[in-house]
Amino acid sequence: MKPDGASLIGFGSGSPGGATFRAFNPVKDAAIEPLFDSATLDDVARAALLATAAAPVLARLSGAERSHFLQSIADKLEMNAVALAERATQETALPLPRCTSEIARTVGQLRLYGAAAERGDWLDARIETAQPERQPLPKPDHRSMLRPLGPVLVFGSSNFPFAYSVAGGDTASAFAAGCPVIVKAHPAHPGTSELVGRLILQAVKEHKLPEGTFSLLFDAGFEIGQALVKHPLIKAVGFTGSLRGGRMLADLAAARPEPIPVYAEMGSINPVFILPGALAERRAALVEGLHSSAMVGVGQFCTNPGVIVLRRSAEAELFVKELAARLTATPEGVMLTPGIRKNFVAGTDGRAHVPGVKVVALAASDAACGAAPVWFETDALNFLGTHSLAEEIFGPSSLIVWCKDRAQMLTVARSLEGSLTATLHAGGTEAKEQGDLVDVLAAKAGRVILNGWPTGLEVSHATVHGGPYPATSDGGRSTSVGTRALHRWARLVCYQNFSDDLLPPELQNANPRGLQRLVNGKWTSAAV
Amino acid sequence: MKPDGASLIGFGSGSPGGATFRAFNPVKDAAIEPLFDSATLDDVARAALLATAAAPVLARLSGAERSHFLQSIADKLEMNAVALAERATQETALPLPRCTSEIARTVGQLRLYGAAAERGDWLDARIETAQPERQPLPKPDHRSMLRPLGPVLVFGSSNFPFAYSVAGGDTASAFAAGCPVIVKAHPAHPGTSELVGRLILQAVKEHKLPEGTFSLLFDAGFEIGQALVKHPLIKAVGFTGSLRGGRMLADLAAARPEPIPVYAEMGSINPVFILPGALAERRAALVEGLHSSAMVGVGQFCTNPGVIVLRRSAEAELFVKELAARLTATPEGVMLTPGIRKNFVAGTDGRAHVPGVKVVALAASDAACGAAPVWFETDALNFLGTHSLAEEIFGPSSLIVWCKDRAQMLTVARSLEGSLTATLHAGGTEAKEQGDLVDVLAAKAGRVILNGWPTGLEVSHATVHGGPYPATSDGGRSTSVGTRALHRWARLVCYQNFSDDLLPPELQNANPRGLQRLVNGKWTSAAV
Repeated sequence: MKPDGASLIGFGSGSPGGATFRAFNPVKDAAIEPLFDSATLDDVARAALLATAAAPVLARLSGAERSHFLQSIADKLEMNAVALAERATQETALPLPRCTSEIARTVGQLRLYGAAAERGDWLDARIETAQPERQPLPKPDHRSMLRPLGPVLVFGSSNFPFAYSVAGGDTASAFAAGCPVIVKAHPAHPGTSELVGRLILQAVKEHKLPEGTFSLLFDAGFEIGQALVKHPLIKAVGFTGSLRGGRMLADLAAARPEPIPVYAEMGSINPVFILPGALAERRAALVEGLHSSAMVGVGQFCTNPGVIVLRRSAEAELFVKELAARLTATPEGVMLTPGIRKNFVAGTDGRAHVPGVKVVALAASDAACGAAPVWFETDALNFLGTHSLAEEIFGPSSLIVWCKDRAQMLTVARSLEGSLTATLHAGGTEAKEQGDLVDVLAAKAGRVILNGWPTGLEVSHATVHGGPYPATSDGGRSTSVGTRALHRWARLVCYQNFSDDLLPPELQNANPRGLQRLVNGKWTSAAV
Repeated sequence: MKPDGASLIGFGSGSPGGATFRAFNPVKDAAIEPLFDSATLDDVARAALLATAAAPVLARLSGAERSHFLQSIADKLEMNAVALAERATQETALPLPRCTSEIARTVGQLRLYGAAAERGDWLDARIETAQPERQPLPKPDHRSMLRPLGPVLVFGSSNFPFAYSVAGGDTASAFAAGCPVIVKAHPAHPGTSELVGRLILQAVKEHKLPEGTFSLLFDAGFEIGQALVKHPLIKAVGFTGSLRGGRMLADLAAARPEPIPVYAEMGSINPVFILPGALAERRAALVEGLHSSAMVGVGQFCTNPGVIVLRRSAEAELFVKELAARLTATPEGVMLTPGIRKNFVAGTDGRAHVPGVKVVALAASDAACGAAPVWFETDALNFLGTHSLAEEIFGPSSLIVWCKDRAQMLTVARSLEGSLTATLHAGGTEAKEQGDLVDVLAAKAGRVILNGWPTGLEVSHATVHGGPYPATSDGGRSTSVGTRALHRWARLVCYQNFSDDLLPPELQNANPRGLQRLVNGKWTSAAV
């Protein structure tokens, strides 16, 4: 299983003519074969047309049929996990075990979303039966449910080559919702992308789905991604990446003649509030826990704890001293790409020169694409007055914010912009008095964690991976992870005065798919 | 109960200084007292600050408490229905019985959305309990639900002075979701708006809710509405009106430093496809039904049937002849405002000069703000080649599109942009063969009607009043009518590793609010 460097336009290949590029091994500081061709505008048009032709066919598939397709992709990822992880570790510098476990998570997502499609309760099927004799007006029979939006464009992320890339959560949830998918591969791991894309296309063929069910486009630059977002046949966009990139795509989509939704998950600072009682009870465990959460993946997690809010005390100063010692002794890691490292160096250099900011820990880094922890501290007043300090630095850098009392910790919490997560560590007796702080954090984040850490996301029915802007482009109304992710790719359709034979099976009287439905205001899986 | 002409900023009044204006009686062609003061930018800031202070208090109300508040507004509308309808009929030229029945519908919406808030299943509460022993990683307890977005801005519509205005569906659903509301009153019925606004404020006081729960701002122009959309403390916008107005607000909101959702329902052409079998079975009833649906409210319904697609035949020509006779004999109606009439006259004059378009029916109109039916016909090829023919003319004007065969009807259907509704009339035997046409129409509209008419919207759990762009600004993912309307004003929040005492009641183990919840993948209203 080796990549050959061409975009996958349905069952065909991309046309040559675009700029070429190679993957890059950040550990060896060297390019990796083969040469990849950037897709062309002609490839964009072909992929969009194929997807549009596939859309009504996929929309008619039952949930069970969609599930079988997703399970089949999951099987193929499992069967090819060794080769996939090997290519990914070369392209991303993520350790092999991490790549292997990320494949397992991706497989789990595909299976869970497939099961959700099969169960079908996400469709929110609702039936109101006719009352012809009702006064003053008869009530018509009307029945409604979610229906797929049409061709979905997914941007692969740099930091999760599997779980948020070609067969990642956006793709899996869009397939589960009944939409064709076009992926714009992240240029940092094109080989991994192509290998996964080929497995998806195998599954498409085995299930006799239409050719336009899936396409994968490469590009060394931004032209193809932008052309796809602007293409009139694309109906929604999923993105995981930087604030700058996500906002640019959201702006493009909003300015189209027909605006379309962009679900961009753009990372965040993931504030962590540590209260005195927690430090008194378990300082050593907090040092270890925070160090581990902040260092995983060389800090390249969208849930990386980027701002640590402390109330000044002798114990808190000891905590920071111990943490700083641990950080300074941390060996450097290798970042995903030279570009990401360059931004990390520029971001930390810039922060080091912000007035009122001091370096707490600075570890040594030598490797070409290496990065070691660079942590800072400042006081709350400076933080509140300096907007740039509340901006994410992607990588192993966080900022400690010193508060003089609890009131100032609340003020800092209220000042925060949206985040994917917010974390609170409290001691056994003080926890129950934190209702006001929990309310503020719940208004700022998609997930609030008590006495835990933000990294390590459980993928379930209850998962929320989203949050107010700038964590996401949709204000935290949706989640990009968990079974609720399917909702993003659907719209509501109501059928009025229809007889069974023209209704989708999900809305027919006999309830042939056995869904839970809201019938005349009551949830039931019975027939009507 | 008389309006006094000042904006209602919480429990206070707007500050003077803005431009003044009066309501206008389109029947008498005369202004109505009193003088209204446009709000000022200071009023905008005060209303936004008050709403922000109220938001966390409203967010903590139980569904039952929100319901009591909504029922109380409904009671007050009912008790004051006579005075409200009298003022509205003067300001809008809508007949008194229509105003009375619209109040009844508005009351029904408030009660239904209140009941939905009380039942709480819309919150989508989900619980995954911990599995500390799970391999390879323990599973954390995590629980999630929808939480209110914060201050919501609602724009009153011109054509529904109650159901889509101050206490209309957007306001009722936002209150039900736990959000404070700021209404920008439509200047066409400021007196009605103020009277309804005062009733809402009475209910706010009686229920001891915070002052910022509700504000109402007047403006003769656009400055105040735009300032509200751009205000950083506003978190979402509801709008019912023109495509031009809705798109302008959506663009403003998308360009904010923090983009916010705009749910704009912007009207549509509501295509009606009438098949030969239907004409053969019930031509006379179709003439009456279409005439009645197209003429209700002087054609000023967002669900007004604006494009009628027919297959040419002797029977179809007879249908149009009979319909034209009926239309020509229709007495003129009085439109909502001189501005709307001006646009209607300009729109119909423009269409009359489009090559290939002929006038089918033209009734006489004399009154100052009068409008009588002006219907057109063209052939499918001309329709397909002339984009302006697929644009809505607000008022009693529709366009008949002649097709040579069924294939051409399908082509016309596929060419359509998004609509709120699409209607199909089929005969008894031909209906079952229309699966392809129904699929196309379901891809184009939020509601598909078989053998019925688009006007007259049932407000229920299953209602969908939305549709792909340009019918709405959100691509038909949401509905502005029906209990699903609550979802628009909420975002997802997940609580990880929390004990009961710090969780919202909806997510506590004991399930004190008796909600249906998804617990470890199973729907149940039992305790955990």
